[in-house]
Amino acid sequence: MENNTKTTTTTTTSAPSSSTVSRTVVLVLRVLTFVFLLIALIVIVLTKETSEDSDGESEIKFNDIHAYRYMISTIVIGFAFNLLQIALSIFTLVSGSRVLNGDGGYLFDFFGDKIMSYFLLSGSAAGFGASEDLHRFFKAAELPLNSFFGKANASASLLLFGFITTAIASIFTSFALPKKA
Amino acid sequence: MENNTKTTTTTTTSAPSSSTVSRTVVLVLRVLTFVFLLIALIVIVLTKETSEDSDGESEIKFNDIHAYRYMISTIVIGFAFNLLQIALSIFTLVSGSRVLNGDGGYLFDFFGDKIMSYFLLSGSAAGFGASEDLHRFFKAAELPLNSFFGKANASASLLLFGFITTAIASIFTSFALPKKA
Repeated sequence: MENNTKTTTTTTTSAPSSSTVSRTVVLVLRVLTFVFLLIALIVIVLTKETSEDSDGESEIKFNDIHAYRYMISTIVIGFAFNLLQIALSIFTLVSGSRVLNGDGGYLFDFFGDKIMSYFLLSGSAAGFGASEDLHRFFKAAELPLNSFFGKANASASLLLFGFITTAIASIFTSFALPKKA
Repeated sequence: MENNTKTTTTTTTSAPSSSTVSRTVVLVLRVLTFVFLLIALIVIVLTKETSEDSDGESEIKFNDIHAYRYMISTIVIGFAFNLLQIALSIFTLVSGSRVLNGDGGYLFDFFGDKIMSYFLLSGSAAGFGASEDLHRFFKAAELPLNSFFGKANASASLLLFGFITTAIASIFTSFALPKKA
């Protein structure tokens, strides 16, 4: 069925090829990643809570937790690389030719998506791992900080969505690889 | 250069093909993953420390920290799936044919390695994220638990090595994919 539609569409030159379709899907996934990472960045930067105890006021911010600092660095680096990928994708779609000729462009996309997806996942998992147990210990110490950990978890969730869209893009760029075996 | 060696080896039938070489490399990587995950499992199970304070003795074990419970579940599931992959790899190498015919085997290897590598990385990152900040808070509370967190970090490092070998295997199985673009 897939093959039949392919052969009929190739007779009309205006119909998009399967390669153009997959490039468009990858571009949409990258724009979604961009949106998720942007909101994740805004949320993590706003993650702070002021608590009052017998000693006076004390404020906790995202950079008091090392795991959240790692999380923010994965968001920022992922964001910068994502912008580069979007620029290259748009260039390829518009001009029809790749910036990197031959196998280079495919390899760049493949390794770029692969490494970025690992990177974003590690940031999200580190954030969730720290939140879960720290929140329990703070609760046990009668200092729940629900808003603080809620915001941090919201940011880690958005980072996880960014990972999922990058991982799906990575499947497409793996299938587009030139065959070596 | 690569192409030259390939054409000369194909003339002698006894020389291994590049596909057999990459299958052997993948098998070696999977055996390494097996070793790393086995030691990671032993180390995390042994992660406990007894501390004495004014209230008497108290013991902390790996299952007191939720992130370490998630870590152990990724190790166990990764370990089980790894054994299945090793069995299938050995079968393919010995018999020369695959259990799953057609594209099925390649897709199984590709998605198996991809999902497993994400899974192992998330366990390792969650473990490191929790260790880093919990250790700081315990140190600040004059209860360093250095041995406990040291063992947990050793296990998370081994899990990270298991992730790295799986990620390299994943590159090989991506290049072996049937071309779809």
